[in-house]
Amino acid sequence: MKYDIAIIGGGPAGYTAAERAAANGLQTVLFEKKAIGGVCLNEGCIPTKTLLYSAKLWDNMKGASKYGISVPDGSSFDMKKIIDRKDKIVKKLTGGVKMTVSSYGAVIVPQEAVIMGEADGRFQLSAAGEVYEVTYLLVCTGSDTLIPPIKGLSEIDYWTSKEALEITTLPRSLVIIGGGVIGMEFASFFNSMGVQVHVVEMLPEVLGAMDKETSGMLRSEYQKRGVNFHLNAKVIEVGKAGVTIEKEGKTALIETEKVLVSVGRKANLSQVGLDKLNIELLRNGVKVDEHMQTSHPRVYACGDITGYSMLAHTAIRESEVAVNHILGVEDRMNYDCVPGVVYTNPEVAGVGKTEEELKTSGISYHVQKLPMAYSGRFVAENELVNGLCKLILDDDDRVIGCHMLGNPVSELIVLAGLAVQHGYTVEEFQKTVFPHPTVGEIFHETLFA
Amino acid sequence: MKYDIAIIGGGPAGYTAAERAAANGLQTVLFEKKAIGGVCLNEGCIPTKTLLYSAKLWDNMKGASKYGISVPDGSSFDMKKIIDRKDKIVKKLTGGVKMTVSSYGAVIVPQEAVIMGEADGRFQLSAAGEVYEVTYLLVCTGSDTLIPPIKGLSEIDYWTSKEALEITTLPRSLVIIGGGVIGMEFASFFNSMGVQVHVVEMLPEVLGAMDKETSGMLRSEYQKRGVNFHLNAKVIEVGKAGVTIEKEGKTALIETEKVLVSVGRKANLSQVGLDKLNIELLRNGVKVDEHMQTSHPRVYACGDITGYSMLAHTAIRESEVAVNHILGVEDRMNYDCVPGVVYTNPEVAGVGKTEEELKTSGISYHVQKLPMAYSGRFVAENELVNGLCKLILDDDDRVIGCHMLGNPVSELIVLAGLAVQHGYTVEEFQKTVFPHPTVGEIFHETLFA
Repeated sequence: MKYDIAIIGGGPAGYTAAERAAANGLQTVLFEKKAIGGVCLNEGCIPTKTLLYSAKLWDNMKGASKYGISVPDGSSFDMKKIIDRKDKIVKKLTGGVKMTVSSYGAVIVPQEAVIMGEADGRFQLSAAGEVYEVTYLLVCTGSDTLIPPIKGLSEIDYWTSKEALEITTLPRSLVIIGGGVIGMEFASFFNSMGVQVHVVEMLPEVLGAMDKETSGMLRSEYQKRGVNFHLNAKVIEVGKAGVTIEKEGKTALIETEKVLVSVGRKANLSQVGLDKLNIELLRNGVKVDEHMQTSHPRVYACGDITGYSMLAHTAIRESEVAVNHILGVEDRMNYDCVPGVVYTNPEVAGVGKTEEELKTSGISYHVQKLPMAYSGRFVAENELVNGLCKLILDDDDRVIGCHMLGNPVSELIVLAGLAVQHGYTVEEFQKTVFPHPTVGEIFHETLFA
Repeated sequence: MKYDIAIIGGGPAGYTAAERAAANGLQTVLFEKKAIGGVCLNEGCIPTKTLLYSAKLWDNMKGASKYGISVPDGSSFDMKKIIDRKDKIVKKLTGGVKMTVSSYGAVIVPQEAVIMGEADGRFQLSAAGEVYEVTYLLVCTGSDTLIPPIKGLSEIDYWTSKEALEITTLPRSLVIIGGGVIGMEFASFFNSMGVQVHVVEMLPEVLGAMDKETSGMLRSEYQKRGVNFHLNAKVIEVGKAGVTIEKEGKTALIETEKVLVSVGRKANLSQVGLDKLNIELLRNGVKVDEHMQTSHPRVYACGDITGYSMLAHTAIRESEVAVNHILGVEDRMNYDCVPGVVYTNPEVAGVGKTEEELKTSGISYHVQKLPMAYSGRFVAENELVNGLCKLILDDDDRVIGCHMLGNPVSELIVLAGLAVQHGYTVEEFQKTVFPHPTVGEIFHETLFA
């Protein structure tokens, strides 16, 4: 069978590429060996957000009296129903993606595809005994959870994010190894549901490369809610008794019923046969240029396999860039405007430069920031937690970064992304009319701060 | 006392102008005879949104079982607590505004100011027996609820939005006269709280000039929830028995305990003394140009007194334009990018052109639209109502309008406003990276639809 393009992997990069390629007239085949939607849709972003929304409703109910609503004793939640609903949503959305991809005319092959080689300007792929001949190849086989070599880990029944999304009963206590975005989202969920949570993080702060000020504010909020944070701490052993950590030269045992490992993800490089085409690799993933082109001019790679950003929306945009390049449409990947979001309650979001990286690079900048309570709607809808809006500006007063804490910053950060993308100055951005009252007005206020 | 500028009226236009003028070095005096924050902060936007948020929590609680949360019988709300909280929020926010205005060095005079005349290039104002001499004058005295001349109305104890925000007990039934934005927000609130609601609207659809498709969807959703809509209907009399309407030549009596009048607002032109300066008026308000300059070059007018947009965020932007013009900074008012938002549940929002006005003007356009359920997060967080994202594009594929239904479109519509403001084409806007999963991704999806 002959196609213009074969896409290996049906996650956000793969299904988006299939839609765009087919919509633009390319004969397109998409291979997915497990489930369309990839980790994101089946065992990542969407399932987590479904659970976190139930947890948010539960939080709201617990705090409803502050808003004049009284809930009697006896309210409860049903983990099985929460998980069943998550499964229903995933099924609905994966069904929708399949339908959309097919509606554009792309063919979905639910099989593993392996690259066999290249001949006469075409690639040969094999899937379930069939051979496919294609002109272009887009590899987006994603990533797997990284399992660190911790003593005793393989002997206990630990969770990764995947298993944590399938539970029907809650443990009494949980140690989360790794306080990055995934770790913090699970800390938020299990804390809301009444589990005693510990977070062990090797670095001095949670949330990895995100802005330190908002990360610290989030940590301190969850500390108040009873989450125990062990920063600058290394896990040296896990066992039935719990997790042994080393911090400032001292070891300590954290007793726990369950352990969740969330130290990161690693690109899925093996199995697909990249070696057959001598594709150049970096330490963590496939090497690509700003058009998502690999060392082979007709092979593209997008999403987690590049080992770079590991975000679904990065993958989506990368796949659009790749397809545009194949189609001869000018486009290039710009990571400066890719927002990062943490779906805790309150949410954290950021885009563009952080103060930390600007300091490290010695680039001059200045900051304008305000508490979220400068937005009237935020005050009207948030009795408990304050938040922050911080704009990072360069010497020409252009917005080069933005970092926020407070609901619903997940939905707002793209505005700052637009400002970064288009290089808006403070004066230009000030002219945008934000509806009143909205939380988004915090941008307007901060621009005048 | 001498000042560079006197601002009459301390609503959103007035307090924003005072901040900006003082921040830029103008000696500024702000007169407010009632309460800083104006109608918006004291008896309009903010109080309504505070109540509507309690109603939303109550709606969420009633629907929580769909998300795996079970609430036992016996949940209740306390109207007095809800109103008390509203008062607390208003107090906090008006306090904040006062503090901000003062922090920039503007002087707040809590008195009524009247224009006495002009001499030697300065205006004379009188307030509480004191005379003020100023070079520039900014009039933003706002608007009042319009009370239509309905037979019997003055003899009953009806509500306007102001009284409806002060209640501590709910009526069993309520007829809302006027199905515009204010009418629909109150319909939403009282419907959520269990009141039998009727909406009487003279036009064929609710929500005035907003997009007809989303307005119709909203109406039909509230119809399902038990609100009775009487469209194309005129109120001919009100009395103790209820409200008599005429529709298609027939009259009918709607029995009701209470009546809420929300047919519109009218500019506050009297009292301030505009006649002393021969300021040119239009039928509904003060005539201004795109710099918010009146027929007198040193007199500006902003906000509801212009009788034009009647929105707090319009007033805010207008006051910035006026202050910029006084300061010699190039700026002009553009109403095309002013979003309109309805804080029902689900919310409705729109910006730029509607199909209706483009058809009337004979301007060619095309539409790209998708149900909100194309956003994974929307699906994860909305079990009941679907929504809509509709982009209006001109012949160059530029975004010239956007109309949406579904939470939280109040916070999202400004993105479409930015696109309209900066004239983004579909192709340019497609390159913006929306974090995944967010409801905002619906823009991205719709741009590719």
